[in-house]
Formats: sequence, structure tokens, C-alpha cells
Amino acid sequence: MDPTACPPRGRPRSLKADDAILSAALKLLAERKDVAGISMEAIAARAGVGKATIYRRWPGKVELFTDAVATLRPPLPELGVGSARDDLVKIVAQICDEMDSPLQRVISTLMMSDTHPEIGKRIKQQVVAPRHEAVFQTIERGIERGELHPGLEPTTVLYLLVGGALSYARNATDISPERCAEQLVDTVCKGIYQQDAADRIGA
Amino acid sequence: MDPTACPPRGRPRSLKADDAILSAALKLLAERKDVAGISMEAIAARAGVGKATIYRRWPGKVELFTDAVATLRPPLPELGVGSARDDLVKIVAQICDEMDSPLQRVISTLMMSDTHPEIGKRIKQQVVAPRHEAVFQTIERGIERGELHPGLEPTTVLYLLVGGALSYARNATDISPERCAEQLVDTVCKGIYQQDAADRIGA
Repeated sequence: MDPTACPPRGRPRSLKADDAILSAALKLLAERKDVAGISMEAIAARAGVGKATIYRRWPGKVELFTDAVATLRPPLPELGVGSARDDLVKIVAQICDEMDSPLQRVISTLMMSDTHPEIGKRIKQQVVAPRHEAVFQTIERGIERGELHPGLEPTTVLYLLVGGALSYARNATDISPERCAEQLVDTVCKGIYQQDAADRIGA
Repeated sequence: MDPTACPPRGRPRSLKADDAILSAALKLLAERKDVAGISMEAIAARAGVGKATIYRRWPGKVELFTDAVATLRPPLPELGVGSARDDLVKIVAQICDEMDSPLQRVISTLMMSDTHPEIGKRIKQQVVAPRHEAVFQTIERGIERGELHPGLEPTTVLYLLVGGALSYARNATDISPERCAEQLVDTVCKGIYQQDAADRIGA
């Protein structure tokens, strides 16, 4: 949870109430499939708390839903111990796994929607950006270690892997997130590992 | 000329009326950013036709919006004349270009949304599937010609390229669709061209 989004105001906070409110917000989002129709009253009623209890914790829906989405994302895996390829598989498997649920599809929709730009922007900053940063750092480490081609374009690799994970999630498949991540990363790695193919295609 | 400026009335079948209706549906979609709130009455009013005129052409919103989205997509480029790499660049550039507009983002949202599964399914069948099929055929042709690695997984390549195009469209950039397509395809090609890197990563 972003501590700046919910400054403590007077009364000591109850973690149980926090959980109930965040959980209620996510349940309503899964049911209604859009933030627009969800009122703070509805969240309070579902959580079994008063509306004032929510406003003591979150100034508005934007902050509340950003925190709610953040609770769904587990911490990033430990990186930097294995090869760049193994680290990329770890991150991409987690991204595939996170995206592969009906609720996550609602969240993706929310992020792409022009109707709630503030929520999308905050989710990008607080939830998505750290994952992208982890991909970038892994690529840079791989280049430094001589595992990855020094001329590769990190943004392109990021687009391919994150986009590949999103495509995976959007298409019903029976491949596990881990297997999918291996396939995506290995296909890209064969390109981004140092080799001669770059010359052959004139890149 | 704006087709809505001169609405044909009472004709059994008019291409001008078709255009006005499809154009009205897209304009309303761009404004409202969701199909749910758009009534057939609103489309008829915007197109300057009667509601019956719409129903003579389309049984409902699902069919109408599918056709409306289809009008936005230009025909696929000519394929099979150049290298697999060049053909993939052509298709991916078109996909990047198609996705890189506010209206297309609305459409993407629509396709990912669980609230309109029928429209999403139809758009996938009629608009998206032919593009994916073109990617598959290009990959198969590339394998047959010895340009691409025979062991590659076409679905993974499709996910990477289409997902990469989607990621490109979702992130504001100043790269042209053509340049972006080259970067995406060349990065993937270095992997899918026949070379030794596959052995090195144990794939």
C-alpha cells in the first residue's frame, strides 16, 4: 500500500478493516466489471464498515482501487542470482500468472480504458512500473555480463515479453504460466543472445 | 463529404445509409467509450436515419459494431513476395498502425472487456483472426523456405509480435509504426532465424 495515499488521521487503523475494504472493492470490480458504477457507499456496505471509515484511509476511489489492485500482485521474485534468461523467465512467468485471471482482465481493461485515466496512471506507476524496471535491470545486467547482445534495444525486448505475456493471457490456453514464459523468453533470447544471426538479417 | 450531412430516408438499401450508420456507431463509440450506453436509437439519430433502417441491415448491436470496427481496418498488405522478415514487418507495421489511435484503444478495451463477450468474439473472428492467420502463414512459408528455424513455435512468435505491437500502442512513443515493426520483428527474427544460439540456451 502506498503510505502517502492514506495518511493516518487520528484513530489507530485496523488492518482487518483495511483488508475488508480492499477485498470488497475487488469483489465489486469483479462483479460490475467497471469502476464507474461502484460507489464508496457500495464498498462500505460490502465491507461492513461506515463510509467515513473508508475516507479516513483513502481520499477517493482512485487511491482505493490502486491499493486494491496492488494487493493482488505478489512481491517480485528474487533476481540477479541466475542467468539473465532465468531471471527473465521468472519475471515473465509472474506477469503471465498475474494476468491470467478474469479479475486481471478487468484490471487490464481498466488500465486501457480512457474513462478512468487517473486509476490507470496510478496502477501503472505503482504496480506495472516496478515490473518493467525489473525487466530493464535484468537486461542491463545480462549485457554487462556478456550474456546478452550489447546492441539490443531494451524497450523492444520489454514490449515483446510483456506484450507476449498479455497475448498469452488474452487467449485461452492450457499452457502453464511458467511454460509460456520459457517459450516467450527463449524465443526472444535466441535473438538477444550474442550470435551471428544479426548480421544475416542486416540488423 | 460528411455522409451524415445528407441522410437518405426510406430507400430499401443504400450504401450511403450504410456508411452513415457505421460512421455514427464509431463516432458514438469514440465519444462514450463503451458500447453498453449506446442505443440503436442514438445511432439512428446520429446517422439521420430511422431505427428500422438500421434493423433492415443489422439484426443488433453485436453485428453492427463488428462491421463498424471492420471498416477501420484496411486490407492486409500483399504478402509472399519478399522474405519472411519483410512480410512480418509489413503485417506488424499495419497492426501497430491500426492499434495506435484513441478509437483503437476503445476497441481493444471492448475486445478485452468481459461485459460484451459477443462483440469481442465476433471482432476476433472477423477482424483479428485474418491478421493472425497472415502471421502464421508467413511463418510457415519462412520455415518451408529455410529462412526460419523449423523448431520454432508459431504461436509463441505470434504472441510476441502481436503483443509487442499492442505494448507499443499502449505506450506513448514517437517511433513510427514501421520503425517499431522493424525493431520488433528483427529482434524476434534473430531468434527465429536458424542459428546456434538455441543450443547455447538449451532450447
